[in-house]
Amino acid sequence: MNHSQGKVSLPVIKRLPKYYRYISQMQQNGVVKVSSSELARMMGTTASQVRQDFNCFGGFGQQGIGYNVDVLLHEIGRLLFGEGEKLPTILVGAGRLGRAVSRFLTTDTNGYHLLAVFDVQQELVGQDLDGIPIHHIDELESFCAAHKPQVAVLCLPREGAKEISGRLVDLGIRGFWNFSHYDLSIPYPNVTVENAHLGDSLMSLGYRLRND
Amino acid sequence: MNHSQGKVSLPVIKRLPKYYRYISQMQQNGVVKVSSSELARMMGTTASQVRQDFNCFGGFGQQGIGYNVDVLLHEIGRLLFGEGEKLPTILVGAGRLGRAVSRFLTTDTNGYHLLAVFDVQQELVGQDLDGIPIHHIDELESFCAAHKPQVAVLCLPREGAKEISGRLVDLGIRGFWNFSHYDLSIPYPNVTVENAHLGDSLMSLGYRLRND
Repeated sequence: MNHSQGKVSLPVIKRLPKYYRYISQMQQNGVVKVSSSELARMMGTTASQVRQDFNCFGGFGQQGIGYNVDVLLHEIGRLLFGEGEKLPTILVGAGRLGRAVSRFLTTDTNGYHLLAVFDVQQELVGQDLDGIPIHHIDELESFCAAHKPQVAVLCLPREGAKEISGRLVDLGIRGFWNFSHYDLSIPYPNVTVENAHLGDSLMSLGYRLRND
Repeated sequence: MNHSQGKVSLPVIKRLPKYYRYISQMQQNGVVKVSSSELARMMGTTASQVRQDFNCFGGFGQQGIGYNVDVLLHEIGRLLFGEGEKLPTILVGAGRLGRAVSRFLTTDTNGYHLLAVFDVQQELVGQDLDGIPIHHIDELESFCAAHKPQVAVLCLPREGAKEISGRLVDLGIRGFWNFSHYDLSIPYPNVTVENAHLGDSLMSLGYRLRND
């Protein structure tokens, strides 16, 4: 493919999973070809945006005759999941939120492999989360040296995240799924951070309901 | 304030909670005045964007001499939380994710009042989630008629969300915090939907780690 992935903007990247989900459904429903306007209708956008988005990745085939669903799914899947190799991942924080989001890491479909869970609470150590062992946070250094995780999921409060994130970066973590309010990307501009700020999401819904 | 809130774009709205959090911290730290460039540095943006964002809401005071922290916090708080009245809310789905996100609804700080939780599983009925009772989903109609919730949080799979969302709209729900992959805003264009698609968030992190 003759695209330059380095230049793809974040909003386009953030739409890829949605394309992937919709096109998976079409494939399951036996659809073989799809036009940009059909995709646009499903996505709640315009055909021109769909074509523009796809052009960031080389276009995915001849748009005049419609896109081939199998090819689209394969190509978008390859962008999202590489050649199938999973990203070795640790979860920090085994509270309610950590327990809930671990599901997204342990399913086969998202491209991650959850190696271990860490928590500060001694009473959780030795327990497991769907079969993944919970370690004490003090074991972080030895575990990372041995198992080389690349991604850390932060399900802990702001102060805990502030304290731990430098250690994680030093230990080779290059991607964060960050549920805390600590803004990692400012002190560590070279790591990739995906923020999942649920409180912010809820507050902005409140704004829209109160002011629309 | 002489602003026209109807025209504020979604990206600006989505930044409001972050401003609110940062400015709260400044207030706690005893900061009295703040310039747009100081705010920009904390937010990881530019001073010009900060001023542009604030101008959507009337500007929040004289930027030449810096913004007054108390005024900023009060005004942004009023936009996010109104005059303090909480939005009556129900949660549909008492699984792991529902249990985790209920915390965001039961804290005092986000502007919601969680009235009840609903689930299809008979064995959960009569239990509670941090003191909020779990009802069977069949009680939805009678509960909503009596208590008039305005917001529904959907922590259930796509098919369940597809099935229930029309009922909820008919029952007067006008805002959704949607964790399911069902795309509510297409069948119900008049409701306000805030999607929290955690799987998509994780996949787009994967893209960035694999292709950057």
